[in-house]
Amino acid sequence: MDALKKRILEDGKVLSGNVLKVDSFLNHRIDTEFVLEIGREFKKIFSDCEINKILTIEASGIAVSFATAQSFNFCPVVFAKKGAASNMGNDVYHASLYSYTRRADFEIYVSKSYLTKGDKVLIIDDFLANGEALNALIKICEQADCELVGCGVVIEKAMQKGGEMIREKGIRVEALARIYSMDAEKGIEFC
Amino acid sequence: MDALKKRILEDGKVLSGNVLKVDSFLNHRIDTEFVLEIGREFKKIFSDCEINKILTIEASGIAVSFATAQSFNFCPVVFAKKGAASNMGNDVYHASLYSYTRRADFEIYVSKSYLTKGDKVLIIDDFLANGEALNALIKICEQADCELVGCGVVIEKAMQKGGEMIREKGIRVEALARIYSMDAEKGIEFC
Repeated sequence: MDALKKRILEDGKVLSGNVLKVDSFLNHRIDTEFVLEIGREFKKIFSDCEINKILTIEASGIAVSFATAQSFNFCPVVFAKKGAASNMGNDVYHASLYSYTRRADFEIYVSKSYLTKGDKVLIIDDFLANGEALNALIKICEQADCELVGCGVVIEKAMQKGGEMIREKGIRVEALARIYSMDAEKGIEFC
Repeated sequence: MDALKKRILEDGKVLSGNVLKVDSFLNHRIDTEFVLEIGREFKKIFSDCEINKILTIEASGIAVSFATAQSFNFCPVVFAKKGAASNMGNDVYHASLYSYTRRADFEIYVSKSYLTKGDKVLIIDDFLANGEALNALIKICEQADCELVGCGVVIEKAMQKGGEMIREKGIRVEALARIYSMDAEKGIEFC
């Protein structure tokens, strides 16, 4: 997606530790119109697929998923929760993941009521790097015995192994921008 | 908002400890079309106001805010983060709050880059009960010296004191459904 690559080059900041900061438009300050455009792009890419539910993870995945759902006939979005809230009950799917940004392990939860056999699910997230979040969401889809149509991520850091590992399982993964390399001084190079 | 009250009566569940569970459409599984309707309702209510930014808190406030932003000329949404991520930097506003759902204290953060003097801000959240989240967001608006136009919440538990306390400060608070009382056996009564 050319507009996304342009935006990353204009507004993204490469920090130490392989961190790409795009929080001016994607995951802290949300550029509403641009994120809706991202949603329409996912629809184009997965236009051959029947999808009745979008699965994501709080918090950064929610806006992109909501935008994408609008392009998929206003299908529902289910977001996995980090940590169990007191009102979730015990009837949940769960999986664990490590967040490099927050440097902590999380357990994520999805209520069994909201993901079921027969669902045709598109997983959406903002970033794919080591694949921790996607892998946890994929595990939850497996527990729910639903049909995983594919994974759509806004930005893939292709120099990290997450995308490769997930694609090797035979799961379709589409990224709107794939980063080949990035460096605070040399800048960002796309695949 | 009659459609919301109807939906709460149909799908909401009253749990012990004054918890109203509406996660089938609002904050775990998101009914995209219905949440967009909620966004349009906020636009109607605040149609007399000039607003150029929506401020909310992760994670449950994001979808409603994103929907509302679409009705306010696609203005940006800024969401406060719970806990400091390693890529946030130190140039942040912050405030603390207690979450009754998660039974824990949180510090929330907003980057100073994304909320500034001159911004006309509408705060949006899913619930108002004790006012912990709204009060923290209001403190952040004060730190940023921006103009707080008002607060819009989807559901106010009017039997708890948050709304009253905030309105007493002279801040406009609008709720789409105000609950007068609720009980697992007797059900829900609106104001």
